[in-house]
Amino acid sequence: MNKVRDFVIKPHEALAEHLSDDMEAVNALIAERMASKHAPRIPEVTRHLVDAGGKRLRPMLTLAAARLCGYDGPYHHHLAATVEFIHTATLLHDDVVDESGQRRGRPTANLLWDNKSSVLVGDYLFSRSFQLMVETGNLRVLDILANASATIAEGEVLQLTAAQDLKTDEAIYLQVVRGKTAALFSAATEVGGVIAGADEDVVKALFDYGDKLGIAFQIVDDLLDYEGDAKATGKNVGDDFRERKLTLPVIKAIAKADHEERAFWKRTIEKGRQEDGDLEHALDLLAKHDALIDTRKDAIAYIDQAKSAMARVPAHPLRDMLINLTDYVVARIN
Amino acid sequence: MNKVRDFVIKPHEALAEHLSDDMEAVNALIAERMASKHAPRIPEVTRHLVDAGGKRLRPMLTLAAARLCGYDGPYHHHLAATVEFIHTATLLHDDVVDESGQRRGRPTANLLWDNKSSVLVGDYLFSRSFQLMVETGNLRVLDILANASATIAEGEVLQLTAAQDLKTDEAIYLQVVRGKTAALFSAATEVGGVIAGADEDVVKALFDYGDKLGIAFQIVDDLLDYEGDAKATGKNVGDDFRERKLTLPVIKAIAKADHEERAFWKRTIEKGRQEDGDLEHALDLLAKHDALIDTRKDAIAYIDQAKSAMARVPAHPLRDMLINLTDYVVARIN
Repeated sequence: MNKVRDFVIKPHEALAEHLSDDMEAVNALIAERMASKHAPRIPEVTRHLVDAGGKRLRPMLTLAAARLCGYDGPYHHHLAATVEFIHTATLLHDDVVDESGQRRGRPTANLLWDNKSSVLVGDYLFSRSFQLMVETGNLRVLDILANASATIAEGEVLQLTAAQDLKTDEAIYLQVVRGKTAALFSAATEVGGVIAGADEDVVKALFDYGDKLGIAFQIVDDLLDYEGDAKATGKNVGDDFRERKLTLPVIKAIAKADHEERAFWKRTIEKGRQEDGDLEHALDLLAKHDALIDTRKDAIAYIDQAKSAMARVPAHPLRDMLINLTDYVVARIN
Repeated sequence: MNKVRDFVIKPHEALAEHLSDDMEAVNALIAERMASKHAPRIPEVTRHLVDAGGKRLRPMLTLAAARLCGYDGPYHHHLAATVEFIHTATLLHDDVVDESGQRRGRPTANLLWDNKSSVLVGDYLFSRSFQLMVETGNLRVLDILANASATIAEGEVLQLTAAQDLKTDEAIYLQVVRGKTAALFSAATEVGGVIAGADEDVVKALFDYGDKLGIAFQIVDDLLDYEGDAKATGKNVGDDFRERKLTLPVIKAIAKADHEERAFWKRTIEKGRQEDGDLEHALDLLAKHDALIDTRKDAIAYIDQAKSAMARVPAHPLRDMLINLTDYVVARIN
């Protein structure tokens, strides 16, 4: 990777530049399908979401996967918009579930309007995504996206019960992470290959790439919550701890906890009775058991798996960009 | 219609009896697909919903439509389960939006668990419905159900803003009713015909039947809110008035209101400042302007249209049962 160029342009920006014509078409499709003839509340809420931006990482994954398999359109646009709609619908529902007040540095829709609007506009976007994918006329793509949707919803429900349960282990965490993040990443890359009619081993490689990248992405997110700086992440250190979320660093520390430490985690996470100094003590315990170091190692291992998967795909400039993109994910923690 | 038999067995029970083998298969499919390997909260919530029963009217419409077109399976079961899942997902989200505490005489899921569980389990059921319909491998069926989903979600959002807005007229009401009820009824009957490979004019007749029946069903519901007895409906007279819902009877009374009456509706529905005696005064105004009588006439007109639509379908015992079913809907207000 060219270090100078890397300094000037980040991997996701390079991808956006390469795919700019496609992304323009996708953005137009998103704007068109986010509208509603009848219900004025829908464009109000969706405009708020579109204006908030976001990196559009998931639709870019679909476009890149389709293009590197030689696809010339037009249904990669529909699928990219589908993936973004599912993502946005999930965010709207997540903000209701988490009772969030902020996302991407702006007040959330549930705060600006109400929970009702977030629930129903989320449903609307989900049904619009469904229309978009049906238009491709490709049953295998529909099957992949239906299964991804079920994994996402199941993961979200699992998180409800697992988040504050000290019995949650790394296997359950992985299940939650697949639902929260990796299922949509892997569906995004897989459908790109499928719509392009790529060989089975290439489709499988694209799936694996999305899956591992998604897992790494979420692990890095959870790690940054304990060691990031607020300016870079937009989150305060320890938000997950205060919200009693059992993420990978804490799961690792609990696995090595002695009797007294277990009692600490039980009180702070399971019972939610937190006192001054608890976050500092939690950080000490994470350090004592190398929990952050081991979490970072896991993220890097998944990134390596994502790279190996992509190496199974035929050479193409977009393949290299997708490989570089994995470095960008870990760069956030280096 | 045989009056004695009608006294003994109601039209929806006759339908259930005729379709009992199919319904057994559908119930088994529903139970299987409502489960979740990973998230224990899902079967808890869905079991609560299944135990609450309900008439399973929508899946019966799909089964009847497929059977009367000579279909022998197996995908009418998948479609019937799909329709019931979409309905159940909608109920879960509706209860969050309406902040309901009771449904079918039992506490709602959002009360027993929390809003989070209702939102996410609703999403799960929606994604499971999506998997079920993809299994049919029929793209036209997918197109119909995707469009119905969008109409449902759009209608629900429209209701949010229209419900307390005095400018809401009968055209907007109809749009909301199509979203709330008729879109799923018409999709239920239409996909039954499509999966059976019926002729276009039969498919269109089945759609029309479901559409008109669904509209009549909702109008009757809204009428019963003002004139039903609580024992039969499980609702108290005037619930919609207290919840400031602009339903057809009130829309009709407002259209004929003088200046003073408009001020009354503005205060009670739009501003929500209700006082003792307001419900009685509202009932007086509905009577003065024949609003309940005219609403009943509308319901009967839609029932007549449903019957004419069904008359365009070739003769079959199930056709007659579906025609009888329309009488049952109006029987609730006679």
